[in-house]
Amino acid sequence: MKSLFYYNWQVRDEWFKALETVPDTELWRERNGGLGSFLKTMLHLIDVEYSWVRAVNNETDIPIQMDEYKDLKSVKELSDRLRMELRVFIEQWQDEMEYEQVTSSWGGETFYKSEIMRHVIVHEVHHVGQLSIWAKEIGIPVVSANFIDRDLMKPSTVR
Amino acid sequence: MKSLFYYNWQVRDEWFKALETVPDTELWRERNGGLGSFLKTMLHLIDVEYSWVRAVNNETDIPIQMDEYKDLKSVKELSDRLRMELRVFIEQWQDEMEYEQVTSSWGGETFYKSEIMRHVIVHEVHHVGQLSIWAKEIGIPVVSANFIDRDLMKPSTVR
Repeated sequence: MKSLFYYNWQVRDEWFKALETVPDTELWRERNGGLGSFLKTMLHLIDVEYSWVRAVNNETDIPIQMDEYKDLKSVKELSDRLRMELRVFIEQWQDEMEYEQVTSSWGGETFYKSEIMRHVIVHEVHHVGQLSIWAKEIGIPVVSANFIDRDLMKPSTVR
Repeated sequence: MKSLFYYNWQVRDEWFKALETVPDTELWRERNGGLGSFLKTMLHLIDVEYSWVRAVNNETDIPIQMDEYKDLKSVKELSDRLRMELRVFIEQWQDEMEYEQVTSSWGGETFYKSEIMRHVIVHEVHHVGQLSIWAKEIGIPVVSANFIDRDLMKPSTVR
């Protein structure tokens, strides 16, 4: 579980790096499908991950004020800042927590923690697949989606 | 781990269903990014999953003869047929297998089984994100990428 979060974080940071070469006007431009622009997608990934992981941790939602983030740099800073908080939680994740139940503070629905964690993981991978289509459209290199060759599995440290 | 394979299989079958309304000429049409067409993507997902899971199971690769599959129906039949074989293996997956090592029969590189399994999972989710962009382009409904609300976590049966 942890390793898939670390995978998403590595890939997200590589996308932030790849997008540095692109003007902000292009990053905000409306595109077909998904969230509609590179930066809206990045903000959405950060927001969804933060809300759901807080729910798993029995904490109330703190919605992101989307209009405060005007450029790639500020979105990356937000990602870095919230990740510091999330990392503390993810690092102490234990398989025994999988079937504990939680109720989201916004929808009131009850889930297994394991369901939410997997939901967050596939949510990001799915949207990153969309970024790769738009990257081809504007002619920038596509970040690898490979899990192998990232040194993500370290025995007895993560799963 | 198992639940993420079951997730991919559910989502893949929903895409097969959604694509039934689309003429085969549209499904083969070259599109921007990814594998370039709906059916090439579906064949690629089936091929990559089958090859890697066989590698995890210490079996040699049996490449798919791509040009034998001319339409959605035959690609779906291939997916169903190979899944019967894969399901037997996935169902008996145990967490203790994660750090066993295997060498792929085609590249000769050695991996942890856990790395390969996660690679296969994110590979499919990534490409399905691309399908969702193309689906919007041709005006068909997009299959949900949600992991929640699919009843995928059943305590003491899967993880």
